[in-house]
Amino acid sequence: MADRIKLGMVGGGNDAFIGGVHRIASRIDDRFELVAGALSSTPEKSQASGAALGLARVYDDYKQMAQREARRKDGIDAVSIVTPNHVHYAAAREFLKRGIHVICDKPLTSTLADAKKLVKAAEDSEALFILTHNYTGYPMVRQAREMIANGDIGNIRVVQVEYPQDWLTVEQDFKQAEWRTDPARSGAGGSTGDIGTHAFNLACFVTGLEVESLAADLEAFVPGRQVDDNGHVMLRFDGGAKGMLWCSQVAPGNENALRIRVYGDKGGLEWAQEDPNYLWHTPFGEPKRLITRNGGGAGDAAARVSRIPPGHPEGYLEGFANIYTEAATAIAAVKAGEPVPSEVIYPTIHDGLKGVQFVSACVKSSARNAAWVKLDH
Amino acid sequence: MADRIKLGMVGGGNDAFIGGVHRIASRIDDRFELVAGALSSTPEKSQASGAALGLARVYDDYKQMAQREARRKDGIDAVSIVTPNHVHYAAAREFLKRGIHVICDKPLTSTLADAKKLVKAAEDSEALFILTHNYTGYPMVRQAREMIANGDIGNIRVVQVEYPQDWLTVEQDFKQAEWRTDPARSGAGGSTGDIGTHAFNLACFVTGLEVESLAADLEAFVPGRQVDDNGHVMLRFDGGAKGMLWCSQVAPGNENALRIRVYGDKGGLEWAQEDPNYLWHTPFGEPKRLITRNGGGAGDAAARVSRIPPGHPEGYLEGFANIYTEAATAIAAVKAGEPVPSEVIYPTIHDGLKGVQFVSACVKSSARNAAWVKLDH
Amino acid sequence: MADRIKLGMVGGGNDAFIGGVHRIASRIDDRFELVAGALSSTPEKSQASGAALGLARVYDDYKQMAQREARRKDGIDAVSIVTPNHVHYAAAREFLKRGIHVICDKPLTSTLADAKKLVKAAEDSEALFILTHNYTGYPMVRQAREMIANGDIGNIRVVQVEYPQDWLTVEQDFKQAEWRTDPARSGAGGSTGDIGTHAFNLACFVTGLEVESLAADLEAFVPGRQVDDNGHVMLRFDGGAKGMLWCSQVAPGNENALRIRVYGDKGGLEWAQEDPNYLWHTPFGEPKRLITRNGGGAGDAAARVSRIPPGHPEGYLEGFANIYTEAATAIAAVKAGEPVPSEVIYPTIHDGLKGVQFVSACVKSSARNAAWVKLDH
Amino acid sequence: MADRIKLGMVGGGNDAFIGGVHRIASRIDDRFELVAGALSSTPEKSQASGAALGLARVYDDYKQMAQREARRKDGIDAVSIVTPNHVHYAAAREFLKRGIHVICDKPLTSTLADAKKLVKAAEDSEALFILTHNYTGYPMVRQAREMIANGDIGNIRVVQVEYPQDWLTVEQDFKQAEWRTDPARSGAGGSTGDIGTHAFNLACFVTGLEVESLAADLEAFVPGRQVDDNGHVMLRFDGGAKGMLWCSQVAPGNENALRIRVYGDKGGLEWAQEDPNYLWHTPFGEPKRLITRNGGGAGDAAARVSRIPPGHPEGYLEGFANIYTEAATAIAAVKAGEPVPSEVIYPTIHDGLKGVQFVSACVKSSARNAAWVKLDH
Repeated sequence: MADRIKLGMVGGGNDAFIGGVHRIASRIDDRFELVAGALSSTPEKSQASGAALGLARVYDDYKQMAQREARRKDGIDAVSIVTPNHVHYAAAREFLKRGIHVICDKPLTSTLADAKKLVKAAEDSEALFILTHNYTGYPMVRQAREMIANGDIGNIRVVQVEYPQDWLTVEQDFKQAEWRTDPARSGAGGSTGDIGTHAFNLACFVTGLEVESLAADLEAFVPGRQVDDNGHVMLRFDGGAKGMLWCSQVAPGNENALRIRVYGDKGGLEWAQEDPNYLWHTPFGEPKRLITRNGGGAGDAAARVSRIPPGHPEGYLEGFANIYTEAATAIAAVKAGEPVPSEVIYPTIHDGLKGVQFVSACVKSSARNAAWVKLDH
Repeated sequence: MADRIKLGMVGGGNDAFIGGVHRIASRIDDRFELVAGALSSTPEKSQASGAALGLARVYDDYKQMAQREARRKDGIDAVSIVTPNHVHYAAAREFLKRGIHVICDKPLTSTLADAKKLVKAAEDSEALFILTHNYTGYPMVRQAREMIANGDIGNIRVVQVEYPQDWLTVEQDFKQAEWRTDPARSGAGGSTGDIGTHAFNLACFVTGLEVESLAADLEAFVPGRQVDDNGHVMLRFDGGAKGMLWCSQVAPGNENALRIRVYGDKGGLEWAQEDPNYLWHTPFGEPKRLITRNGGGAGDAAARVSRIPPGHPEGYLEGFANIYTEAATAIAAVKAGEPVPSEVIYPTIHDGLKGVQFVSACVKSSARNAAWVKLDH
Repeated sequence: MADRIKLGMVGGGNDAFIGGVHRIASRIDDRFELVAGALSSTPEKSQASGAALGLARVYDDYKQMAQREARRKDGIDAVSIVTPNHVHYAAAREFLKRGIHVICDKPLTSTLADAKKLVKAAEDSEALFILTHNYTGYPMVRQAREMIANGDIGNIRVVQVEYPQDWLTVEQDFKQAEWRTDPARSGAGGSTGDIGTHAFNLACFVTGLEVESLAADLEAFVPGRQVDDNGHVMLRFDGGAKGMLWCSQVAPGNENALRIRVYGDKGGLEWAQEDPNYLWHTPFGEPKRLITRNGGGAGDAAARVSRIPPGHPEGYLEGFANIYTEAATAIAAVKAGEPVPSEVIYPTIHDGLKGVQFVSACVKSSARNAAWVKLDH
Repeated sequence: MADRIKLGMVGGGNDAFIGGVHRIASRIDDRFELVAGALSSTPEKSQASGAALGLARVYDDYKQMAQREARRKDGIDAVSIVTPNHVHYAAAREFLKRGIHVICDKPLTSTLADAKKLVKAAEDSEALFILTHNYTGYPMVRQAREMIANGDIGNIRVVQVEYPQDWLTVEQDFKQAEWRTDPARSGAGGSTGDIGTHAFNLACFVTGLEVESLAADLEAFVPGRQVDDNGHVMLRFDGGAKGMLWCSQVAPGNENALRIRVYGDKGGLEWAQEDPNYLWHTPFGEPKRLITRNGGGAGDAAARVSRIPPGHPEGYLEGFANIYTEAATAIAAVKAGEPVPSEVIYPTIHDGLKGVQFVSACVKSSARNAAWVKLDH
């Protein structure tokens, strides 16, 4: 279609899992067209990866891509940055300063210093910055957020969030594992950065609360591992709610078992990523209710980001696509010189900064024997 | 990409649920490009629907589309037919006779006579015919089929399959409900045609068995309804296995609760469409095992049609996309003058005929007070 | 306590599973005291079994027990008959004709002729006859029955009930398996008699409906087996509801997976024996509700037969004990010359007759190629 | 039976929930006979409660009962103490010093000082002391413990245990709630004492590990409440494993949702009290396995404390009864002058002391802003 948003991609070459996910997510609702890429860490690999995808324009590296695309009349409107974490800052900056919208993988950066600089770069740019905390795109996550905002469970008291995995139970030497356990590329946090940030972001997104401080006990259980593979964190929210966050990559039997439970003085909500089309609502003193995507009791916020009727499950890719589609709507508004519609929701660079602050606070707290650390330290 | 398959679509205009599903499914793996359509039942609506989608070429009706596309050098390679059932035959025939591959929604046709004529038309054509019994595209359905073929549960004795829904519990007057409960457009079977055929197809696909005969007790519970909204069917398979099939559109609390359980002399398997990333395997005398998509114990057949690692759920659209991607691989082979790779699996026109025979046998049996009726009657 | 009901037992000697269950069930609410027994099939074994239990009075056989206990001033008030099925009739008759209340295992008898004679014997006696269709004792089964009686799901249309097991997947030679697969002792039905009757009884109990006729396709899958080990049955209820019943002893992965689903024009209910503290209620168009024993939304009928707060599960033995406690309340009323309280519910000899008619109808229908057979044939 | 253990009871009068539970638990396996009691807090109420139960010997208070029963030739062998926590110490001491075995509810005492004195009293007595941490009686908890001891999941790294409830979400004024939220009767811990101790005990029991230190953040969310109703606790075990413990009485939708997950370097285990007949075993890299009570893969430790075949659920009362039956076997051995069989397992006074130390450490840690506190402080 004529009005598809022209998209470039940095990272996501052959063998990179997350690049393929971004590409599918960008295609599902037909709002983007991938036309350019600098997909790998060397010019040779980039060219090979680009050719394999049949990309119109393939570049040696992100800098070249930013420069040349910015000069083209039909240059990209937006770029997806899906590299290892330590590259996010430098790559994003190149596009932001040229007014190209950035869709960036999480965590925002590998260091807090980079995160703060990137916030500055984004604030100085007229381009949008969208962070792919993709789990916020699931319809029933939106449903939970809407219900809490509506007061359906009352004042929030307790938030239990966890994201256990098992793939790093033993030492792994394939590419995904390698950079994610290397602090130079991943950042000081291991499981905290890779998945703890998702849990943290989800807790804030769903509840609408900010974390005031945390106490963390991190551990690297696998011998020789340089970053945490398990994190136990206690949370204190502004306003008095309290929470626990557990992230782990050494919990056998857990694939991507992100799960959140929120309890207020009137009821509770429970959602699990592996079964994302369900939301438990537990009003105090009444039977538990299982709300399904687009089923009875589901509201507008979920319906808005859902494609098919209840009982036909949507999954991870559709949730991811919702971030892309929200981004598309926002970018289209900007292109048209109109305000971004108020119902559009996507994780921003400020959410990204908070995520990096979360990792940094976890690492600092754990180094101090789990002393409380404020988030805006 | 240059080598995308050029696709047309018949039906699937504004408000049609299944057309949008087909379009997303065709996009997910980037193997098709939708370029032409005759999307609605009148020229005016077709033009409006086509414009809304930004289609390159919009036609008044399927016949016009078949004729003109066949003459173009850059004409469509394949067409998706997503109309109400009674149109399938006439539309598919137009494309088949011009050598355009057909991807057709199920059930194959609204009458057994049409089904037999369409088989003939397909046999006379060099084009492929792919029926979108989409549930056969789910990775864990492929897993179940592979395990049974490998003998993992031994000789099959009992097959329990069901597909309950609830949306027709009360009389409905919106478009989806209207044609599906009109025998002139839907065929003689109501729930049996709309969802019973899915259950029947799934049972055969997973087990590799053919149904020899059935005894059916159909009912229209909602006053005034002209087709069955509930079907109770007993099955006898070639080789001695027996089964039960239940389809219903009046079972409150069931959205699309397609579920199959197969029991052999060594173990059992259980799969449910609403939680499609799981497959229970119950070897006799051992603990139950829960196999997850791409997780431990999952095999090649599932991995081949799966995009992302375990724990990140794939859903209905991805399963549907697998049919499209299998079709793409087959069509690409035909275009290249090569044989279709042996690992490619898709429901064929013969599966479609069997589905119509199933509906016909159910209706006949029920009219005879649930007497046994052979499938190839 | 002084007012415990004095109980005897016929059958239930060493190695008999169900005898121990009856004894625990009789003890849980402290309403019975087991004082006499004729526990095994020979005088020697009976004496040994009685001694092992420390029974006050041990008899050679049930006839001796009935005669002598009837003559004692402190003789038993009631007797539990827990022998293989073919003994039920003759044993029960001895006690009934002496005015001793009978608590009898199901199915009522091994033949329809015996069942009819036993009904006559019970009608001629002033003693009560309680049949231990124990699943009707579960609190959430009572809850389901109460909700249906209250009209919570409207007019019933569809009843799906099943009781699959797997223990007879292969040939077994231990005692439990031996008599249950011997038509001389078990009756003409195998799985239909042993567990199909439970499923049938549960369907009638919960819905309050009577089955008018059925069509059954029975099979003995294990080579050499003389009775059915799998039964597929279609049901037609008085008033127009329809149902399916599946019982199987060759379904690997199923232990005692009795499960019932009932659908009316306003909603549905679902209960599973293996997770008995839960009841799903699915009002049409609303979120599913999970009612828990004694939790929010649970009513009086369940609370009456429940001992502990929600979240602490009650199980099979407590459900079985509820039958005993209902029996105790009824017997105590009779002893006191008072009417049995109207809220007391237990399966009667008429339910027992219906169960035997069910087995007989299944066998007859299957012999006639699954022709419809009326229940009161 | 002649050899039943003669039992007395302190507390458990009319309206007391837990007294009835103890009485049923003592009856299920027919190893005890309740003959004496001082059931309530005043002589008048005690007499009334005893009469209502038809007890042979009713006393005004526990001291009178201890003195008189000790003098009788047919006096009680054992006593169950089921009063509010603050009475445990003084009551237990009276019986211990007279050589009467004590079965006592948890937590051991309401203060750490009392707990230490009670340990001394028990050590000075020849009587046994059994603490009813009843959840350790569940067969699948025994199964988990056996598997971990066998090394089935390797070296333990992470332990996640939680016990959320919801009954104190709002202020309650009935008797159960009243004393449990009164620090004078319950102890300094609210949810930590009432249910946190269960979670703590379960974690230690299942893993065989000791907690070295903890950091706790306790909260009383309901206005005016004097004890914690929510506890977030991080755990460090001897040997390096780490854990989280969450207890809450303000988590709507949770009835008694005690749940434990243990992860080692070879696999994981997961058990939930509300569905106690299941144990998930997740060997790394293999499909999840669902082990059922007495089903395939279940071992001797579970079978020893289980009464009925798989698929017929046992519940809370049976698990509780297992503690009683273990106690009976131990007491019978002592009476016979024989050693307690090595397979007998019950929670001891030392487990009780650890539980009180846990509560004390939680309270102390929380008062110090969640500083780490050693358990044997």
